[in-house]
Formats: sequence, structure tokens, C-alpha cells
Amino acid sequence: MAWQARDPAYAERVRDSFSKQVFMATLGARLRHVAAGEVDIELPVRASLTQQHGFVHAGALAAVLDSSAGYAAFTLMPAGAAVLSIEFKLNLLEPARGERMLARGRVVRAGRTITVCRADAVAFAEGRETLVATLQGTMMCVEGRGISG
Amino acid sequence: MAWQARDPAYAERVRDSFSKQVFMATLGARLRHVAAGEVDIELPVRASLTQQHGFVHAGALAAVLDSSAGYAAFTLMPAGAAVLSIEFKLNLLEPARGERMLARGRVVRAGRTITVCRADAVAFAEGRETLVATLQGTMMCVEGRGISG
Amino acid sequence: MAWQARDPAYAERVRDSFSKQVFMATLGARLRHVAAGEVDIELPVRASLTQQHGFVHAGALAAVLDSSAGYAAFTLMPAGAAVLSIEFKLNLLEPARGERMLARGRVVRAGRTITVCRADAVAFAEGRETLVATLQGTMMCVEGRGISG
Amino acid sequence: MAWQARDPAYAERVRDSFSKQVFMATLGARLRHVAAGEVDIELPVRASLTQQHGFVHAGALAAVLDSSAGYAAFTLMPAGAAVLSIEFKLNLLEPARGERMLARGRVVRAGRTITVCRADAVAFAEGRETLVATLQGTMMCVEGRGISG
Repeated sequence: MAWQARDPAYAERVRDSFSKQVFMATLGARLRHVAAGEVDIELPVRASLTQQHGFVHAGALAAVLDSSAGYAAFTLMPAGAAVLSIEFKLNLLEPARGERMLARGRVVRAGRTITVCRADAVAFAEGRETLVATLQGTMMCVEGRGISG
Repeated sequence: MAWQARDPAYAERVRDSFSKQVFMATLGARLRHVAAGEVDIELPVRASLTQQHGFVHAGALAAVLDSSAGYAAFTLMPAGAAVLSIEFKLNLLEPARGERMLARGRVVRAGRTITVCRADAVAFAEGRETLVATLQGTMMCVEGRGISG
Repeated sequence: MAWQARDPAYAERVRDSFSKQVFMATLGARLRHVAAGEVDIELPVRASLTQQHGFVHAGALAAVLDSSAGYAAFTLMPAGAAVLSIEFKLNLLEPARGERMLARGRVVRAGRTITVCRADAVAFAEGRETLVATLQGTMMCVEGRGISG
Repeated sequence: MAWQARDPAYAERVRDSFSKQVFMATLGARLRHVAAGEVDIELPVRASLTQQHGFVHAGALAAVLDSSAGYAAFTLMPAGAAVLSIEFKLNLLEPARGERMLARGRVVRAGRTITVCRADAVAFAEGRETLVATLQGTMMCVEGRGISG
């Protein structure tokens, strides 16, 4: 689907807000792609992110998937708005291992208040790409409550 | 509900596995309570865990909620088994702020292969307790695939 | 949790709206309990509701669970508002068999726009009660869009 | 994605099981498309399926979405197996109105025990097609428990 952003400065708003998500820096996550209705976040795999079997923890995947979905929604919101995650649902499909993960957030339906997104997490290992998790979530546009970004 | 653990050494198994989740140490999360069908994990709030508005990031909450739910399920599994998260769904109810978060994982239905859990995240701020997020998820018992814990 | 309804006529509003849900009549579902933040719907088991193994179809359970959760949220909304389901997530725990099902919708968190609910489906069979499904969902309060109920 | 069915008689198995879902006949739903990893179910809109605003009830959508996702998973299962829905999550995107709904179930990840699916519900109204709901769910392959289909 091709989306139209209402605010031409949407990419700058996303980059600015992402830079304030200290948790993304804690994880070592980086913003990789921003377009209307689309945001990709890369997560290099490190020992600090692992669960008991040595794979990336579902919570670390949830973090970059939620941020990629939330910012995908945010690209379509008006200037001055803030984005809040209402809820998300995550299916874990394969062990999350490899050199890096890529979370690809995409808008499915954009509304004035409610935006529904999907985000896939892909693992890159020795040149192969594997879908390891997929998220479906609901984002809310908040205006006039003293928060933005 | 009162659950019966099949393996009397369940608490030791949980503690052992939790200590191997490097991501829990990265977050600063601590195991607080382990009983049959019940696990609580505490997350002290730090700047390193925050999103753009200064609240705890939904992904950090998802991490401790998923681990508390998964380990609650794990307490009821036989010795030698491993627990895998199949999926979870998280509703974010209030801004996650305060001194610390507590994730309370509880088993709702325990089966041979599939266990369904719920986990609530409570924020403690100036002596007040607020429910900030709630998770419903599905855990799987895996035996004989070369992993445990 | 004890909730306070803003509109004293909430039970009448629920009964009125329920009577307009033709699908509830198609299923044979009946409103059984209405209180602030709480709605129960009963579904007598009939052959017309079954799936291929003779159990009640997950979709029939989803219908009464969603309605019980939505109306639980609706009890707390102001007069003139309409309730819309944004999303729900359903775990199927046991085969849904017996003489009747009861869906118990309860509000978890009530907000001005967004209300989060839970609903349990219990099966009654030969005097025994079994939890067969559990739902977690998000309801929205809509005002001034030309719909109510 | 292109899937390979293990059992060449998969379409017959799906049609046979679908014909035993009495609830599908109650709704007036019809099987429209069966391929490896893909099942479409059509639901003509009738007054008997509506909620209080005259749209198709979320539970009726959930029923055809769940069946389309479950049967999509079932196409890839071995002969003699049964399919069970473990859980599903449904986002309601637009009012479900029009002449008919089409539920398109697709396999996202197929495993020996667990298969993850997605299903979209599209409404057809006056020649226009609108995405009205989307489901993400988990299906389980059960063998040797005395049930099939």
C-alpha cells in the first residue's frame, strides 16, 4: 500500500523521537529506513540481548518491532501529535539467531485516532534471511495532552 | 488457582535458567518470587529503559512480562524440558513510570504441550501501585530437542 | 475491582443495544448479568454452533466473549456514546462442550477513549464448570459520529 | 510464499471437514478456494449476522477468519491429523458492511506441531473491496488423540 504523509517533515519527527528512546541505544538498535507508513529498525545481535538458549530474547524483538510499528504509524500523524502503543501481539516463529535482526514496521490501516500496523522481524545469518517473528498492533494518535513525538 | 509442580526442583530450574538470560541482567531485572505456576520479576526503573516520553519502553515491559509468564509455565514442566514462548499479546494501560515495575506471571491453563499464562505489570511510585500493562500468552513445553531450561 | 457508572441508566442501554444485535438471537445467546464494568452472556449449546469435532466453534465463543467484553466497557460510557471493538485476542483452552457456555466480560482499565477488558468463557457440563477460553480486548468509546449503543 | 502439501488429498480433507462445521452452514458461509497453505471462505451478508449498528458482528467475522486460517494450516498437515486453534488475535479495521465478506487465510510459518497463519477479511460493496479485519493466529497439529479433520 502507498500512504501519503500529512506532515512533510515526518522523517525528521521520527528520527528526533527515535533519538530520545534511550532504550533503543541500550539495545544497540538503529533506525534504517523511514518512508510514509514504513519504518525499519536494525538490531545487531549481541550477547547482552540473549535468553537462556543463546537466542535473542523475545522482549528485545518486541522492543524493536513495537518501535518500528509505532514509528510507521507516526509517519502518517500530523505535526505536534504523539504516538502511543495501545497493544500488540507477537508470534515467535523461529529461534532468533544470526548477525543481526531487522524489524520492518508497516501501516495496515491508518485512522484519525487509531492506526493498525504489522511488523516482521527478519534474522540475517550467513547471508540467509529468516522470518523469526511477526507483530500485529494498534497505535493511537494523541494530540493536546502535553506530549509529542 | 493452586498448581502442583511435577518436578520438586522447579524453583532451582527457574533460577538456573533465569541466570542464563543475559538480557535480564542487561535490563537490571531480578527474580523476586517463584512458586508452582507463579513467577514475579522486578524491574527497577532506569533511564536506560525509557522511550521518548521518559516512560519505561513497552519492549522492556514485554521482556519481563514474557519471562515471568514463561517461567510460571516452566515451574509446572517436567525436569529436562525447555520452555519456548509461542506468542504473547500485551495491552499497555497506563504510562509506565515510578521507581520500579513488578511483572507477575501466572498460569491460567497447563497442558502437556501448551500452557497459557497471564502476566500483569504493576508500577510502584511513591507508595502507590498502578497496573500499567497486562499480557496473555502461550508457552510450549519442548522435550528431546537438545535444549533445556 | 469496583467500577462506578457515569450514566445511571447503563443497564437499560446495554439491554437495548443487546436486543439489536441480531447475531446474538441467531446464536441463541442471552444477557444474564449487567453491573458496572461487568456483563455475562449465556450461550446454550446447540448443534447449529458446532465445528467439525462437535465442540462449539471458536467463532461462536468469540462472538459472546466479544459482546460480553464490549458491553462491560459500555456500562461505564456516557449516555449517547457507542462502543466499538478495536481488537481482541482469544486463547482456546479446552474443548467447548457441555450444556451451556457462559461468557463473563470484565473491565480491566477504563479510559475516556480506550477501555481494556477481559472475558472468560466457562462451560457447564453435568454440574461441572470448566474454563474453555479467555479473551483480552480493547474497546473504544465513540461520541458524535451519528451512532450510539 | 509457495507451500508444498505433504498429503496430495489435502483439498478433499478440507472440504470434508468444512462440511462438518455446522456453524459454517448456520452462518451461510461457503468454501471458495483451497490451495496448499491457502483457504478462502465467503460470507454473504444477512441481517441474521449483524450487531447493533447493522454491521456484520465481529464474532461472525472471527468465525470465518478462524476457519480460513485453520484450514489453510490444515492443508499442510499429514493425512489423519486434526487441526486445533490455539489462539487468534483480530483487529477490526472498518465497519463490516456490503454484500459479502471474504476471509482469506494464509500460512505464515508451518511447523510440525505449530503453524502460524494470517487471515484478512475483505468486504465487497457496490464493486468496491475494503479490508475490514485482519487476524493473526496459531494452529496446532494433533495426531493420535482420536480426532481428525
